Amino acid sequence: MKEQSTLAQSASQEHSRTKRGKKTGLPPGSIVHVGDRRVSESKLELISYGESHFDLQPLTSPDDLTSLTTSNNRNWLNVVGLHDTALIEAIGRELSIHPLVLEDIVNTQQRPKAEDFEKYFYLSLRMAYVVPERNEPSLEHVSLVLLPNLVISFQEEEQDVFEPVRERIRQGKGRLRGEKADYLFYALLDAIVDHYFVVLEEVGEDIEDLDEQVLQHPNSAQLHQIHQSKKMLQRLRKAIWPLRDAVQATLRNRPHLISEKNVLFLRDVNDHLYQIIETIDSYRELLASLLEMHLSSVSNRMNQVMQVLTIMASIFVPLTFIAGLYGMNFQFMPELKWRYGYPIVVAIMTVIAGGMLVYFRKKEWI
Amino acid sequence: MKEQSTLAQSASQEHSRTKRGKKTGLPPGSIVHVGDRRVSESKLELISYGESHFDLQPLTSPDDLTSLTTSNNRNWLNVVGLHDTALIEAIGRELSIHPLVLEDIVNTQQRPKAEDFEKYFYLSLRMAYVVPERNEPSLEHVSLVLLPNLVISFQEEEQDVFEPVRERIRQGKGRLRGEKADYLFYALLDAIVDHYFVVLEEVGEDIEDLDEQVLQHPNSAQLHQIHQSKKMLQRLRKAIWPLRDAVQATLRNRPHLISEKNVLFLRDVNDHLYQIIETIDSYRELLASLLEMHLSSVSNRMNQVMQVLTIMASIFVPLTFIAGLYGMNFQFMPELKWRYGYPIVVAIMTVIAGGMLVYFRKKEWI
Amino acid sequence: MKEQSTLAQSASQEHSRTKRGKKTGLPPGSIVHVGDRRVSESKLELISYGESHFDLQPLTSPDDLTSLTTSNNRNWLNVVGLHDTALIEAIGRELSIHPLVLEDIVNTQQRPKAEDFEKYFYLSLRMAYVVPERNEPSLEHVSLVLLPNLVISFQEEEQDVFEPVRERIRQGKGRLRGEKADYLFYALLDAIVDHYFVVLEEVGEDIEDLDEQVLQHPNSAQLHQIHQSKKMLQRLRKAIWPLRDAVQATLRNRPHLISEKNVLFLRDVNDHLYQIIETIDSYRELLASLLEMHLSSVSNRMNQVMQVLTIMASIFVPLTFIAGLYGMNFQFMPELKWRYGYPIVVAIMTVIAGGMLVYFRKKEWI
Amino acid sequence: MKEQSTLAQSASQEHSRTKRGKKTGLPPGSIVHVGDRRVSESKLELISYGESHFDLQPLTSPDDLTSLTTSNNRNWLNVVGLHDTALIEAIGRELSIHPLVLEDIVNTQQRPKAEDFEKYFYLSLRMAYVVPERNEPSLEHVSLVLLPNLVISFQEEEQDVFEPVRERIRQGKGRLRGEKADYLFYALLDAIVDHYFVVLEEVGEDIEDLDEQVLQHPNSAQLHQIHQSKKMLQRLRKAIWPLRDAVQATLRNRPHLISEKNVLFLRDVNDHLYQIIETIDSYRELLASLLEMHLSSVSNRMNQVMQVLTIMASIFVPLTFIAGLYGMNFQFMPELKWRYGYPIVVAIMTVIAGGMLVYFRKKEWI
Amino acid sequence: MKEQSTLAQSASQEHSRTKRGKKTGLPPGSIVHVGDRRVSESKLELISYGESHFDLQPLTSPDDLTSLTTSNNRNWLNVVGLHDTALIEAIGRELSIHPLVLEDIVNTQQRPKAEDFEKYFYLSLRMAYVVPERNEPSLEHVSLVLLPNLVISFQEEEQDVFEPVRERIRQGKGRLRGEKADYLFYALLDAIVDHYFVVLEEVGEDIEDLDEQVLQHPNSAQLHQIHQSKKMLQRLRKAIWPLRDAVQATLRNRPHLISEKNVLFLRDVNDHLYQIIETIDSYRELLASLLEMHLSSVSNRMNQVMQVLTIMASIFVPLTFIAGLYGMNFQFMPELKWRYGYPIVVAIMTVIAGGMLVYFRKKEWI
Repeated sequence: MKEQSTLAQSASQEHSRTKRGKKTGLPPGSIVHVGDRRVSESKLELISYGESHFDLQPLTSPDDLTSLTTSNNRNWLNVVGLHDTALIEAIGRELSIHPLVLEDIVNTQQRPKAEDFEKYFYLSLRMAYVVPERNEPSLEHVSLVLLPNLVISFQEEEQDVFEPVRERIRQGKGRLRGEKADYLFYALLDAIVDHYFVVLEEVGEDIEDLDEQVLQHPNSAQLHQIHQSKKMLQRLRKAIWPLRDAVQATLRNRPHLISEKNVLFLRDVNDHLYQIIETIDSYRELLASLLEMHLSSVSNRMNQVMQVLTIMASIFVPLTFIAGLYGMNFQFMPELKWRYGYPIVVAIMTVIAGGMLVYFRKKEWI
Repeated sequence: MKEQSTLAQSASQEHSRTKRGKKTGLPPGSIVHVGDRRVSESKLELISYGESHFDLQPLTSPDDLTSLTTSNNRNWLNVVGLHDTALIEAIGRELSIHPLVLEDIVNTQQRPKAEDFEKYFYLSLRMAYVVPERNEPSLEHVSLVLLPNLVISFQEEEQDVFEPVRERIRQGKGRLRGEKADYLFYALLDAIVDHYFVVLEEVGEDIEDLDEQVLQHPNSAQLHQIHQSKKMLQRLRKAIWPLRDAVQATLRNRPHLISEKNVLFLRDVNDHLYQIIETIDSYRELLASLLEMHLSSVSNRMNQVMQVLTIMASIFVPLTFIAGLYGMNFQFMPELKWRYGYPIVVAIMTVIAGGMLVYFRKKEWI
Repeated sequence: MKEQSTLAQSASQEHSRTKRGKKTGLPPGSIVHVGDRRVSESKLELISYGESHFDLQPLTSPDDLTSLTTSNNRNWLNVVGLHDTALIEAIGRELSIHPLVLEDIVNTQQRPKAEDFEKYFYLSLRMAYVVPERNEPSLEHVSLVLLPNLVISFQEEEQDVFEPVRERIRQGKGRLRGEKADYLFYALLDAIVDHYFVVLEEVGEDIEDLDEQVLQHPNSAQLHQIHQSKKMLQRLRKAIWPLRDAVQATLRNRPHLISEKNVLFLRDVNDHLYQIIETIDSYRELLASLLEMHLSSVSNRMNQVMQVLTIMASIFVPLTFIAGLYGMNFQFMPELKWRYGYPIVVAIMTVIAGGMLVYFRKKEWI
Repeated sequence: MKEQSTLAQSASQEHSRTKRGKKTGLPPGSIVHVGDRRVSESKLELISYGESHFDLQPLTSPDDLTSLTTSNNRNWLNVVGLHDTALIEAIGRELSIHPLVLEDIVNTQQRPKAEDFEKYFYLSLRMAYVVPERNEPSLEHVSLVLLPNLVISFQEEEQDVFEPVRERIRQGKGRLRGEKADYLFYALLDAIVDHYFVVLEEVGEDIEDLDEQVLQHPNSAQLHQIHQSKKMLQRLRKAIWPLRDAVQATLRNRPHLISEKNVLFLRDVNDHLYQIIETIDSYRELLASLLEMHLSSVSNRMNQVMQVLTIMASIFVPLTFIAGLYGMNFQFMPELKWRYGYPIVVAIMTVIAGGMLVYFRKKEWI
Repeated sequence: MKEQSTLAQSASQEHSRTKRGKKTGLPPGSIVHVGDRRVSESKLELISYGESHFDLQPLTSPDDLTSLTTSNNRNWLNVVGLHDTALIEAIGRELSIHPLVLEDIVNTQQRPKAEDFEKYFYLSLRMAYVVPERNEPSLEHVSLVLLPNLVISFQEEEQDVFEPVRERIRQGKGRLRGEKADYLFYALLDAIVDHYFVVLEEVGEDIEDLDEQVLQHPNSAQLHQIHQSKKMLQRLRKAIWPLRDAVQATLRNRPHLISEKNVLFLRDVNDHLYQIIETIDSYRELLASLLEMHLSSVSNRMNQVMQVLTIMASIFVPLTFIAGLYGMNFQFMPELKWRYGYPIVVAIMTVIAGGMLVYFRKKEWI
């Protein structure tokens, strides 16, 4: 069933978190991959572009990256797969990135945060997308490093969240080609944040379907679905809250690598983060209300069944007693010999049953 | 039924939100209409007025708008319908409005916010009104742009929320004609905020009706109504909270287009927003309490039914057993031959039934 | 019943709030009375006093009020009845009070706030008192305007909350006569705030009565009372929270009309407001706990009834079956002809009943 | 019973609060005793000490107190009993203490607060102790006034909370004798705050006892105990929160009477207050969880009873019907004349009962 | 059972807290051990190391510690066992540590806090680890004192949480040997904080196991487990919240003993603390949702049982009545003599039973 697989998948994701503990006791800056290995082979893809040209090529070694930061082009290096710590370390050494940052890049449980160093700006966040084959939301750890003329993105799996940005560079649409690396950095961040809307729409549709069903046909499978949706929203929330803090901190102490005029775009991202949080919160509230409705509906339905049946049983109890009374085998029961004993008793029974029905109806019990 | 249609309507409104996702991946400043197309044709209406004159005319093209900002008149351009992005873009180009702002104007899911640019001041908010034919609250995305001598309002549908302002300009009542454009801006904002009171009164009356009914005749339809009212209040709250933040930010960093003496009026609006939020919150609390009352009432009523019926059944159980006992066909049952066996047994039964009634009454069960 | 009338009264008060909507669309500063007309005729009462004299006189017209602000006496003008907007407007014109303030004075739904103008200081608040004939708390909108040598108080009904202040002026007790108008302003504010304690004691006694009853004799009328008390506390809280904000803002930006040495008294009022809020909150918490106790008690009591009755029924079910078994009319049932068949069956029944009783007792069900 | 008396006692304490209202309408600074009179006679006790000497004497009149503030000794005046307002007023007059402070000293409902005057520092707080004869926590209003060389403590009853401090002065243990009056002030405050730990341990033990019992033998008396513990914790919390605010405000704006080097000790007190609040909050959370457990346990137990009994009843219902069937008196019922009719019917009954048992067991209902 | 022992253990830990009260009344700075004595003998272990050497030796007396602070080596003194207050006091005297700090070191109930003195920096915190033999989380009070060239750690029991640090010093791995004492201080703090992840993974696995079980086989033991997990999370939360406050305060007012370049590492610790808190909070939320699911599941299951059984009983009630009717012994009951009376009655019974089944099925009750 769909719910089962969601559970299994989220359970397995939760499980990967348990490996965080294996880092305990290592010196800080130890670059240890935490999480599942999602791709078989790490992949480096370099896109170089300028006002009028564009060049995409796979990269086999991280040498010579430093030269990119002083080139005339803008460069975007996309690293897919975080398990190859030697590769990540080589990149870090080449660009003098602090070991603590490298540690965060390969730790897929790292919470979203922004850190401004003199030579580069680091942002860690979670990317959300809907896995097409399972039709389910999934979260992935992404790191963005902004250097002069170079943006490096680290991701666990190859997903199409960045594809529209790649397309815009390729086609030279919009301002992307003409802007500096900080605009590319913003474009990638914006692509990730915007994709939360897609995921939330998916989740929201499920919740709204539930909303209609719960009031019409309450059943226990809905309980499970409410529980799953709650957990999914909680995971989205846990990914988005610290990201908002990070973006706000970035807005407050604008890093020198981000130019003044692009702050407006960051403010726009911040705005979207607020909207995402508000949407998540309103879905959470709706789910809480749905759970209440569900419990009440189930209880109402049960009460209805019990009430009707109990009333029916109650009517027959005294009648059965009377029948039992005249089923007794005493020798001296004068009624038994009366000519009209039987019809009289049946008449009495009818009166009792009728009286009870009238009484119950008056009490509005039936 | 009324509730059904409310549900359907709110569901359809929720549905339009799902289209937010289609913007994902587009470059920032892409002017894409998000939401339902509520009117067939966009409409431009220009009101020009001064101390002593007044002129209303429909506008067919957005050319020459720049000249308005330097005219001697105050001008109010009301744009109805947001789906015609070409038109909005033309207005934006003419007045050098930032593409991100234009994007927000046509995005009907945009959350309320204020942004101060050098040449204009932008405020996005939600207008609330009661749809007369359905007798139901509805929310609509509105944008206000304040320029020198010109206020532009963008709305989805033509509603009469602005009519009193138009009337005051027409009749020259109040200070409106003599004041600058920032006062008109305030008047429009005030008209929108004040209309929340009308909507809240509508919602409040429903809740107070519920309050009386729940305690007297609890039924499961009330559950549905409580759930619907909760959702409506949540939507109003989601519209009003960020607006208050926006108005407060405007008060803190007063934009140069808003004159010192009109700040007092903005403070008044801020005050109304507080009152609206407090009213919403107290209704929400009342609904929570109502739900508790409802559940308790239903449960109390059920308990009452069950208790009376169970007690009745319990009294007859031992009696029926005794009757069954003397209905047995053993050959050697001396009681059956006793002269007064039958009356004695009936007497015993009466004693048992009476004893139980006394016991139950002593225990205060009946 | 008492509860019914409370409900009706609070409902009617809530109802008057619905008239707030009629102001929508009017220009700001429109002086429209919002709320019920509680007195038939507006009344003006002027008390003039100095170190050594005292003079009380009704006032028929608001002319010459300006002269009071420059007189050697301190003056207190008490206005009872807010529906006569012409009168309020005349007072406002005479003393150059801003139309927005006048609007707030006659709007009985206005939330408490303080506003400092150059020439006067305005405070809007709610007065709470116990209506003697109904023994119920009631809230009333009050406005205080502090000018040099003059305090104006606007109230909806004539209540005795101000009487002790009047008495202290009359008898020259305390420092009141020797102090400036700001001390009178404080004395009036203090009288209103202190009266909340009286109201809270009234409410608190009801809640403590409930506390004792709920644990001893839970019944469904208590549900209603808990609900009513909750609503009353919510209304008091809604009146007192913004007042505390207003008093704190006054303490922060001390208006020049309030002298340095009287700030200590304002701090005392602030302190009382804190205590009132804490008391309200602890009552709310107590009510929430009471509701839980009530529901548990009702449920416990129901469970007890059901359990005893179900057990009794259960014991007789197998016995009745056995009796029915030997009530069958088969020709070949050897037991029926046994000499001791009947006593044996009765013995078996006794053993079964006894065994079940022992089992139930061992399980601690009875 | 213990619970009953706790209730009664706490109810009577709540009751004394209701007298707060009698002050309403009096001028500020009216010294009116609010609360119960707990001792028959007020008592003044003066301890004078220096580096090398120590003197304890009862005081009969408050004259000459001013001379103490300029003496070479440190002095501690302990006032027991707050109902003798004339005495308190005399002390206040002698030492020029502000009437508002005196008003707070005799108001046993005063919430904890600190106020710094030029000549003295005032701290109002609640003392918590366990009443030995009732084994129950109790709260008492205490005021501390710090003057140069003199500390005055006002308390309602004579309790041994201050005894260890007295003992330390008497024996010259620790730094107390060698320090200034501000250290004595701190020592008294510390003694009061530390005693909360004793009270919390008492309350905590009860709660932990409950924790064990609830899961093993849920019964309705536990409901009562949970409710009582909640109320006690709420009262402690209401006493400690404002005290923490007061101590923090004291730390922020260090009064000149408290020397720099003793601030460290005040920080220690602040730390203890935090720990007390955290302990109270964790007990509150534990109680909430306990209540949930209790309700679930009760409901589980009830369900278990109902289920077993219902199942038993259900098995006999069809059997009894079959027995009734063959108890009918029709003349033409061929089965009745069959040689093996009776054993066949008994066999059928056995099969039905067995089948139902198997079915129920498969469904895991029994 | 496992749960039982957890309960017992946590109860005993809670119990030790009750001894906090024995300090009440003692002068501040009284060094009294609060808590259980967990080791029989206190133990001092001194590790001295420099860039190129390493020396570990047990210490028998705390003399000459001062010389360490001025040596060329870095020194780490680990004190195991806090009950030997004479020893702790001797260390304190030797290094001029404030008595209040010593008091906090031996008080195992001390809440986490940081305090900066001129000559040393003090940090009190809780260490969390999983007790291997019981497979259960446990908390222990730890104090860290940072002096020039010397770090002293005080712990209750000898645990292996510090072992990785010791190992890194021994093997000269990482930067530890080459750095100053503040880096060692950070390394110890980091080791403690990182170990929370191990504990949380343990707790998290239990909760996720519960999550799966609750939806599949709800039973009352799960209630107990939810309650225990809640208590454990609450204890972890109570340990980690004040630690975060302490670390943040340390970051804000950087003590001079911590060098600028190591602040980055402290920020990393701070980051981990945030992540721990978020993980705890998400587990708490999950537990709350689990409890709701559990209660709903139990109630659903009960409802299902009751419904099926009640329906079955209801079908037989009218049939049994009819059987009883024809079991009556009236002499004049014409039906009894009819040739087809019996089959007709049986047919009627079948029709009634069938009709009820159809009706119930239509109502979706079965």
